[in-house]
Amino acid sequence: MTENRNGVWGQDHPIGVAVLGMGTVGTEVVRIIRDHADDLCNRVGAPVVLRGVAVRDLSKDRGLPADLLTTDAEALVTRDDVDIVVEVMGGIDPARALITAALNAGKSVVTANKALLADYTGELAAAAENHRADLYFEAAVAGAIPVIRPLIQSLSGDRVNRVVGIVNGTTNFILSAMAETGANYADVLAEATRLGYAEADPTADVEGYDAAAKAAILASVAFHTRVTSGDVYREGISKITAEDLETAAAVGCTVKLLAMAERVSDEDGKDKVSVRVYPALIPRKHPLASVNGAFNAVVVEAENAGRLMFYGQGAGGAPTASAVMGDLVMAARNKFFGGRAPGESVYAELPIASIGDTPTRYHVNLQVADRTGVLEAVAGEFAKHSVSISTVRQEGHDEGARLVVVTHHAQESALADTVAALAELDSVTSVTSVLRLEGTEE
Amino acid sequence: MTENRNGVWGQDHPIGVAVLGMGTVGTEVVRIIRDHADDLCNRVGAPVVLRGVAVRDLSKDRGLPADLLTTDAEALVTRDDVDIVVEVMGGIDPARALITAALNAGKSVVTANKALLADYTGELAAAAENHRADLYFEAAVAGAIPVIRPLIQSLSGDRVNRVVGIVNGTTNFILSAMAETGANYADVLAEATRLGYAEADPTADVEGYDAAAKAAILASVAFHTRVTSGDVYREGISKITAEDLETAAAVGCTVKLLAMAERVSDEDGKDKVSVRVYPALIPRKHPLASVNGAFNAVVVEAENAGRLMFYGQGAGGAPTASAVMGDLVMAARNKFFGGRAPGESVYAELPIASIGDTPTRYHVNLQVADRTGVLEAVAGEFAKHSVSISTVRQEGHDEGARLVVVTHHAQESALADTVAALAELDSVTSVTSVLRLEGTEE
Repeated sequence: MTENRNGVWGQDHPIGVAVLGMGTVGTEVVRIIRDHADDLCNRVGAPVVLRGVAVRDLSKDRGLPADLLTTDAEALVTRDDVDIVVEVMGGIDPARALITAALNAGKSVVTANKALLADYTGELAAAAENHRADLYFEAAVAGAIPVIRPLIQSLSGDRVNRVVGIVNGTTNFILSAMAETGANYADVLAEATRLGYAEADPTADVEGYDAAAKAAILASVAFHTRVTSGDVYREGISKITAEDLETAAAVGCTVKLLAMAERVSDEDGKDKVSVRVYPALIPRKHPLASVNGAFNAVVVEAENAGRLMFYGQGAGGAPTASAVMGDLVMAARNKFFGGRAPGESVYAELPIASIGDTPTRYHVNLQVADRTGVLEAVAGEFAKHSVSISTVRQEGHDEGARLVVVTHHAQESALADTVAALAELDSVTSVTSVLRLEGTEE
Repeated sequence: MTENRNGVWGQDHPIGVAVLGMGTVGTEVVRIIRDHADDLCNRVGAPVVLRGVAVRDLSKDRGLPADLLTTDAEALVTRDDVDIVVEVMGGIDPARALITAALNAGKSVVTANKALLADYTGELAAAAENHRADLYFEAAVAGAIPVIRPLIQSLSGDRVNRVVGIVNGTTNFILSAMAETGANYADVLAEATRLGYAEADPTADVEGYDAAAKAAILASVAFHTRVTSGDVYREGISKITAEDLETAAAVGCTVKLLAMAERVSDEDGKDKVSVRVYPALIPRKHPLASVNGAFNAVVVEAENAGRLMFYGQGAGGAPTASAVMGDLVMAARNKFFGGRAPGESVYAELPIASIGDTPTRYHVNLQVADRTGVLEAVAGEFAKHSVSISTVRQEGHDEGARLVVVTHHAQESALADTVAALAELDSVTSVTSVLRLEGTEE
């Protein structure tokens, strides 16, 4: 055991922890701190003791001594006997002010708050820096799966080129169920709500806001660049239809809501970061295609490491608490031994690529009249807008004929112009859907 | 940027690195240090400069200035301008003495040397501790895949129950090729040797010594217990036949060389650690079943995190160098900012379970006479030795009849006694193979 470098903590002077919020994650964090005191003491070097838990409602029975509960979170985070604050209440306010107050008082902070981090990591990291405190946030992305620490530390000597993840369990549950059962979006969402996989107001999940916050955090650490949620191009899954899943399956693909952060080159060959969240077709052989239900996975591609994948439970009380506790032990060790968490690294300051700068492949589904010349007319519109076609597949006959066109990489604007022109063709009844295609080699 | 806490390193005083060995990994490490100087400087806080590379043969052209090359590794590791030593020469001697000398001189060490760590982590960690130096070894297990750091840090607030990995690329290449082509072991090994996937003397890989060293390292960090290679029960793949792969496929399984470290309970309910390496059947649906070729993957099961999987390239110059470089940056940051790598944690001191204490399921392949009463006689022997049968499948007729018996969990000694008794039965022509079955739910 290394000596206690700061000379403050030890057997007679435990490391004090305050927990903000006692929802599903907070409850598990409190349980682990209390039930695993011996392990934690051995791993940290000093006892880790719960000093208090900030809750909104004192009357609820939480199986904790009354003197550990308080509604006064502000007082709790600056208490002298608190060394580390665990924030698992969520939301921007009052979490932002409480974390800032804690850091300003020199307390280290462990947070699972992706919405807050996606917009305010800069100011929080500066407060941590100024007061020599740690700010850890492994639990903010992909629950129990270690992905922030690998990106910040394990890959710190490599050059990340791409991060692609399934980081929202609700939408993955919905898309997996639609693919399996053929049911439509509304019915599966209703079922997901009933089972507790979707919240009463599912907007943050189904419209991609949650995934976009996580994409911003992943992009920031992967590319040493400050990326906020406003930098993320975002589309949700609420327009995905049963037919989309069906046509995806017909071409050997499945549909997933992907969070992507990618190094792209602009015309002058300068690096930019493209950060985007949208539902896309991916080939069934792609490692992310078999990530089903509430599971999460993140694929990282780096220059030297090649392709890595991290897989596990992306949400839930105990899994998220596992990530929080890992950070808590490291923050406590830093207090005890005198180390510091790596701070915010934004030296690369890469510009953010607009979605127009980021060509992708497209999968375009057309309802067409079944007569000669249709294919020629459709192909002509793609050519006219310089969108190169990879494959065309025709299905059905007579009134129900369908064309499925898969393009090579194309600019979004060129594709939009093509689609507008296709809709005007006599032989095209309707453009049924336009979805991006990701994860193919070309 | 945090201040330079130790006040030694900075723009005018770079962090000096010595590299021991310039094989496939060392060459890549040297390339990255030289080509990515700007990124490294930004990530560390001070320039990282290559001071020298120890090689055996100075006459070989390595594209490096001559004054960077030396055959005097001993002098190199203790040079005043060297702060961190990267050991990628492999083998026990002289690596052990060189690392010890470096640590004794207060240099931090980054090593990829699994054989050395599997037996000498205790003494090396003690030297690091005594001289306030870091000992990092992410690259020793599973190449580029971050698994040591997640186990030591990310899961430090959790309780790991099991680690199961495919951590040897050579054997995985051989078993994958046997499964795909139906070819026998000797032919595939010859092909692997020709392609450079197997060494001229493949013993360390095919007999499981390499995987056993990695299993010992994984077990040590996962269970906070010192586990050495001698604690690992080990069987290789050299006796696996084309028929084994075929019968495995017939029951929906594939054969993989697994490195396992598992928390098991003895009769008194006390925890022990079982560490073992052997080829086993796993169901095709198991996440490790689709890890093919030279890829590695490690599944970690923890009380709160649940099941996590880490996947990527387990060997090769650039991938392994990525892991080395991540450790190098963290070690350099510690020099600069005053932190320390987590030291060896062996407080749990769990006893090692013998293979006899670790019941597994078995897949027993019998050549039998095709006559009535055979099944009864065979089943009787299993019952007599208290080995409970899960399924029996009969294949073929007449001279070629075959029985495949899959058991429930059984003690190794009971299974061995059963097999001996089966061999004595008139109706059993031969016991063709006995393989373990892992990764099933029961």
